[in-house]
Amino acid sequence: MITANARAVYGPSDAFKATTIDRRDLDPHDVLIEIKYAGICHSDIHTARSEWGPVNYPLVPGHEIAGIVTAVGSKVTKFAIGDRVGVGCMVDSCRECENCQKGEEQYCLNGNTLTYADVDKYGQRTQGGYSTHIVVTEDFVLKIPEGVGLDVAAPLLCAGITTYSPLRRWHAGPGKKVAVVGLGGLGHMAVKIAHAMGAEVTVLSQSLKKKEDGLRIGADHYYAASDSETFEKLAGTFDLIINTVSAKVDVNAYLSLLSLDGTLVNVGAPAEPLSLNVFNLLDQRRSFAGSMIGGIRETQEMLDFCAKHNIGAEIEVISADEIDEAYERVLASNVRYRFVIDIITMTA
Amino acid sequence: MITANARAVYGPSDAFKATTIDRRDLDPHDVLIEIKYAGICHSDIHTARSEWGPVNYPLVPGHEIAGIVTAVGSKVTKFAIGDRVGVGCMVDSCRECENCQKGEEQYCLNGNTLTYADVDKYGQRTQGGYSTHIVVTEDFVLKIPEGVGLDVAAPLLCAGITTYSPLRRWHAGPGKKVAVVGLGGLGHMAVKIAHAMGAEVTVLSQSLKKKEDGLRIGADHYYAASDSETFEKLAGTFDLIINTVSAKVDVNAYLSLLSLDGTLVNVGAPAEPLSLNVFNLLDQRRSFAGSMIGGIRETQEMLDFCAKHNIGAEIEVISADEIDEAYERVLASNVRYRFVIDIITMTA
Repeated sequence: MITANARAVYGPSDAFKATTIDRRDLDPHDVLIEIKYAGICHSDIHTARSEWGPVNYPLVPGHEIAGIVTAVGSKVTKFAIGDRVGVGCMVDSCRECENCQKGEEQYCLNGNTLTYADVDKYGQRTQGGYSTHIVVTEDFVLKIPEGVGLDVAAPLLCAGITTYSPLRRWHAGPGKKVAVVGLGGLGHMAVKIAHAMGAEVTVLSQSLKKKEDGLRIGADHYYAASDSETFEKLAGTFDLIINTVSAKVDVNAYLSLLSLDGTLVNVGAPAEPLSLNVFNLLDQRRSFAGSMIGGIRETQEMLDFCAKHNIGAEIEVISADEIDEAYERVLASNVRYRFVIDIITMTA
Repeated sequence: MITANARAVYGPSDAFKATTIDRRDLDPHDVLIEIKYAGICHSDIHTARSEWGPVNYPLVPGHEIAGIVTAVGSKVTKFAIGDRVGVGCMVDSCRECENCQKGEEQYCLNGNTLTYADVDKYGQRTQGGYSTHIVVTEDFVLKIPEGVGLDVAAPLLCAGITTYSPLRRWHAGPGKKVAVVGLGGLGHMAVKIAHAMGAEVTVLSQSLKKKEDGLRIGADHYYAASDSETFEKLAGTFDLIINTVSAKVDVNAYLSLLSLDGTLVNVGAPAEPLSLNVFNLLDQRRSFAGSMIGGIRETQEMLDFCAKHNIGAEIEVISADEIDEAYERVLASNVRYRFVIDIITMTA
């Protein structure tokens, strides 16, 4: 058994506390990772606070993990000690269902194993990246290419792949007009990646507060979604809209911004149902779709793409004692654009 | 001016009356069609009764038109006297916008000209196919191939293309599982066409009343949507679902029947907004889309496809005096599967 320092919550309204957790001894295909950085995702907050259903406490969140391999099991072939690696939202899947066979483990029909708040094949509760070490089977470990800092790479493991995957699937690229709704942790990655893919990128943010940032990181245009003229002006404009806002938005208004055969993709979901006027789909043959992270193969492709295009997240590095404060700032949309915990500060 | 016998309504709750209407003298590119058969589409009823907004009366509905060319304008090149032809939901469009240039005149950005209840470029109100003659510019006239009777061809001009277009766009074919929701005028065409495309076809009908018909015309499986076990049994099954039911259905239940990357396409829209749980889109990366009829080029392709596969509508032929009764039976879903008016009975 390996003992790791960690930060855990013990109840839905508790502050984080320093603790230690056990990581399993290495199986032949396992990799031991010394975690260097862990991003803070909005999902961490929802889960830690039981907002997505009951969870077992204590809970260690974190699924944007970057670190260094410090030991490998006897049959590991993909990684060696010293490798720069990442772990995202999944640490395992059934590997046998139709979707896993296609490399779409995020849609595993038998239920994949989430990095935290889940139960793995050993019957153990999974605990995430707000910790000094993690043990993961090699097929769910990603290589972080040289040239991308581990700190700015960590958020790619969730925010990066969550936006890369729908941008690829719905063909963002030269000649395509892509809008990104919301310039937060996911939105700012969507802007960088869509821009690198060659698309013409428009940000639709609640206000113009972050306009300068948006244009700097790759947006060609920037509009305030709170301004109703925005919707008149941009009617029928976009081939693809990536909605990164999980809160309930007026989906009908966004659909009206799509041109022929355009698609609105939600990468998050509001807790309550949306009201959808189907005429907005019939007109211009529009689609409303959803997308969740990406498969392991595609996540590696995304990391390689980001390295090639020199893309990392825009981050604010915090210490292990600042997680509670960071959560409050995430909820207030007061972060540019992702908090990353420097795990070296995670003392027992 | 050409005088045609017609059947018109004079108000939203009126019965049809015999009347005459004027058709314009032929422009150089116009074709005069002696109508032989006109299908009765549910849209006719909605429009005749002002259920989709106010209309001008008297109104002559009908956009499933099949007949014979009896005169052509001086510059007509595509048609000759004696040709078997059809006219669908549109009789013109701007021909200049991006969508018209792509051959998607049904999504004309400047507004196409509908076959009835619209105003054409001459400033004249358009009147539809419940009449003995119609004059249409040649680019919006379709050839009905030999081997397809004009009576069973008429419904192809709306019900046929409305289902063919999304089946093509979303790749119905060998190896694909396609479900058709509703076995009415549109649904029965969807079954025939999807079957001819090589897909495995399942009908989801309210009850099992029409099961024998469904299997006869090409369905491989037939389930009652009123049976909740249907939704458990078929969860995650289909690549494509064509929803032909305009009434409000539980879209979340139908989305749950889609497999990875599956699409639910509505070809009609309920008057009221639907309640959509976006998690159903995120799971299995599903899409919810809409589709309206098809372009002129695609409509010709559909007619040729139907001729090749020996497909016509299943029809009940009625006389011009039976329209009101037919409307009541359409509203009661008591028609197998499309009423077609025999225009020879349309005396003044």
